[in-house]
Amino acid sequence: MYAAPSVVGKHWIYDLQGGNRDLLNDEDFVKEALSGAATAADATLLSISSKKFEPQGVTAVALLAESHLSLHSWPEYGYAAIDAFTCGDRTDPQKACDYLRKAFEGTHGSIRILKRVCPNISLLQLQGVVP
Amino acid sequence: MYAAPSVVGKHWIYDLQGGNRDLLNDEDFVKEALSGAATAADATLLSISSKKFEPQGVTAVALLAESHLSLHSWPEYGYAAIDAFTCGDRTDPQKACDYLRKAFEGTHGSIRILKRVCPNISLLQLQGVVP
Repeated sequence: MYAAPSVVGKHWIYDLQGGNRDLLNDEDFVKEALSGAATAADATLLSISSKKFEPQGVTAVALLAESHLSLHSWPEYGYAAIDAFTCGDRTDPQKACDYLRKAFEGTHGSIRILKRVCPNISLLQLQGVVP
Repeated sequence: MYAAPSVVGKHWIYDLQGGNRDLLNDEDFVKEALSGAATAADATLLSISSKKFEPQGVTAVALLAESHLSLHSWPEYGYAAIDAFTCGDRTDPQKACDYLRKAFEGTHGSIRILKRVCPNISLLQLQGVVP
């Protein structure tokens, strides 16, 4: 019997454009926004690490119980490369992206949606597995 | 004149399979492996955050001066969802993936290669920009 590859994670690849340059350059705001995005996605935030670059730019990653959120900003172009990668049925990476778009006042951008797949896992086995 | 969208980041999406279950469940080993992968990719490691789950599984993210590496493991299936996202001409996310495949003794898997693009940036502007 053929067993379809099992999806273990939902990975949203979001290139945000037209964002507010000051906010994208504000390390504290970026960390607060990632925390809010984790809540919006119904994920559990474990920790956030970040770094502010000179003359501009912030990079930050939020570790989740359900994988991670990341944001790397180029404030001078109103741009941020965002990842929202979550596992489990409950979490919704789309909501994290929506939250971040509003927080950074993004006017446009693109989202690519990936499924992270482990063909070795049957759907039955996957039930209840949270890494 | 048409200006082609500019690539700001190289993002390798690596689903590693057939890995060593003990190593994939060893938080210290995962952190060491991410550190080694950053060096292999010629990237600058800023910090690593991680979490060990019970009964199994490790999640870890390495913040780089050139974006991030992440790894979320399901040791019971010999599987890890790995991201190697780097900016700049010098860094090579393929080398990070190769390093991690060897470190975790992965026998197979899949890599999807994404370009992270900000259409607002001209190639001329991009030169020398490291977030």
